[in-house]
Amino acid sequence: MIWLDYASMSSASSNNGPKRFIRQNIQDMAAYAPGEQINNATKLNTNECPWPASPKVFEAIAAINQDALRQYPSPASDTLRNLAAEHYKCSPEQILVGNGSDDCLTIIYRSICTNQAKVICPWPSYGLYDTLADIQNVEVLHVPYKINLSTDACTWQIDPHIGEVDAALCLIANPNNPSGTLEKRETIKSIVERFSGIVVIDEAYIDFAQEDEQRQGLISLINDYDNVVVLRTFSKSFSLAGARVGLLFSNPTLINEFNKVKDSYNVNVMSQIAAEAALADRSYHKKIVQQTLDSKAWLEKELTAFGWQWPPSEGNFILCHVGENAQNIYQQLKDRDILIRWWNTDELRNYVRITAGTPEENQALVDALKEICT
Amino acid sequence: MIWLDYASMSSASSNNGPKRFIRQNIQDMAAYAPGEQINNATKLNTNECPWPASPKVFEAIAAINQDALRQYPSPASDTLRNLAAEHYKCSPEQILVGNGSDDCLTIIYRSICTNQAKVICPWPSYGLYDTLADIQNVEVLHVPYKINLSTDACTWQIDPHIGEVDAALCLIANPNNPSGTLEKRETIKSIVERFSGIVVIDEAYIDFAQEDEQRQGLISLINDYDNVVVLRTFSKSFSLAGARVGLLFSNPTLINEFNKVKDSYNVNVMSQIAAEAALADRSYHKKIVQQTLDSKAWLEKELTAFGWQWPPSEGNFILCHVGENAQNIYQQLKDRDILIRWWNTDELRNYVRITAGTPEENQALVDALKEICT
Repeated sequence: MIWLDYASMSSASSNNGPKRFIRQNIQDMAAYAPGEQINNATKLNTNECPWPASPKVFEAIAAINQDALRQYPSPASDTLRNLAAEHYKCSPEQILVGNGSDDCLTIIYRSICTNQAKVICPWPSYGLYDTLADIQNVEVLHVPYKINLSTDACTWQIDPHIGEVDAALCLIANPNNPSGTLEKRETIKSIVERFSGIVVIDEAYIDFAQEDEQRQGLISLINDYDNVVVLRTFSKSFSLAGARVGLLFSNPTLINEFNKVKDSYNVNVMSQIAAEAALADRSYHKKIVQQTLDSKAWLEKELTAFGWQWPPSEGNFILCHVGENAQNIYQQLKDRDILIRWWNTDELRNYVRITAGTPEENQALVDALKEICT
Repeated sequence: MIWLDYASMSSASSNNGPKRFIRQNIQDMAAYAPGEQINNATKLNTNECPWPASPKVFEAIAAINQDALRQYPSPASDTLRNLAAEHYKCSPEQILVGNGSDDCLTIIYRSICTNQAKVICPWPSYGLYDTLADIQNVEVLHVPYKINLSTDACTWQIDPHIGEVDAALCLIANPNNPSGTLEKRETIKSIVERFSGIVVIDEAYIDFAQEDEQRQGLISLINDYDNVVVLRTFSKSFSLAGARVGLLFSNPTLINEFNKVKDSYNVNVMSQIAAEAALADRSYHKKIVQQTLDSKAWLEKELTAFGWQWPPSEGNFILCHVGENAQNIYQQLKDRDILIRWWNTDELRNYVRITAGTPEENQALVDALKEICT
């Protein structure tokens, strides 16, 4: 006869406290660490737009109707979805609106990933791809970027063999974060054609690409391949990071399945209205994108003085290979209330990522760097 | 030697189209069906507050700062969390702010439910409890309410044996939706004491309870039991359904684990500001709660004329047992642009749920019912 040792079981579980209720994979994981937010600091660390959203956004929010707040919002963000369909030249049935593109990513993982599923992505990339896999308890495979650090032609390239890996989900940030590099349409297309699962092309930064044609991005691929999802966000070029609005583009069948998984009322009415106003004001959008490109060009010119390398960036930021001094520079800037991004990981320890700021912010950064580095 | 039949595999999967990428449990499930939203109809179907949010809310939104929208919001909604801690007499570490309490529920399911986990709830209750189990691919056990339909003492009571069922998660809406009934503190406490997993007490409607003591709700239980989670929402008594803000109360250990699972920036800055302003304006809140109670009392008086039964409601709605004519009444009201809630399910087919509206809305409903029912 076997006696269960209740006394020791109960003590074991109470030692663990309320954590015993939580799935083991959640207990074991670390939380995603968002970039630091410090009041009144010069924030060049989280790739926010340094200029405010369109004045039309603030007018629209101030004019919000009492009933709009009192009642539940449109579950599918209908007005915004229709506007976005027109703007991005697709049908509303090909769009899901998310509470930020982080919400879109969460919906994708929850819809696709069973325990057996594997997720792959070129690495280093957006840290949330890993965090979401941890939450969903699936394995992530990092396929290293091919990095060339030579001064005259510093490059980061995706290993095209990624298309042949057997996995359920492949995430490609394009332009990539943190490198800012953009893969050619043909490379991505060939990955999509060979990959057995779904390819998510995360175009959070595509509006900052240099060439008009590149700025179109790859939304049109959803018409040619049934395994493509493209993400956009209002957090960067529309300057609405505070509003949390992202767009997911795919075929209507997948959109329909994703809709089952999203929270019924996932986007609040104020954010829907803000995004609609931002999307409608195209000339303002064009203006702040151009200002950002000018800001980045100025920064690049000034940063050459420090002898660092960086790959050509098609985002609103630059990933500088600084060497062993990277953490020190990050810390000394922070001591001067200037935030840039530094990661304490094997792959990124020798880099810092700098967001293009206003001319004043850029000048403050360069002045501080001159003090620190000389 | 075995030859894999690639030709037939490929054809099988392409017949299924892009759905082949989606988890089987998601393919098989139906989406959660939110209540109908029809413009300009008299909406007595989704338990929204018929009066607008506090004027302070609109002032706060109109005054929103440019940087607030441009930058990422506070990940933990710090200001709101601190205010809520003061208001609900607990510590900020015992609170998680969600993108609606639906987001809080999603976070709980994702943190707790493995494939082996079971979810239980008294039934009928909030349909989303089932939908979230379908998404997470876990079994739900419905423990039927003990329903007594006699005219003089119509009651709905939770079967107290629910506390003895072996499951990971027990969800209790208190007051219950759709019945409006409130279980006593002692009953819930005894379920919590006996239950092996986590008990979620969903107090979305608690502000409408008749007695001051009941309105305190059960948040204080989080100090006594490590397996209790309490939910509140700004969608009902604060009239902010459009803003999507919910609160989750529990012990700091569980809050910490739940924080790993929530989206980093799950609540946008405008909704944070709106909820802060609503929470701070206590006299306005008190006023619209009283108006709602008066509205419900008037409705109850008028509805006696139709010979229906309903259990005593501590919410802002009444669940009327109408009999076989329920669908017909729902439909005829809809034809007159008056929406109430009717469910085509075995348990609820003979009921309609009516939200307490403004005096004008209530009058329109009663006038229409007099036409339909006589």
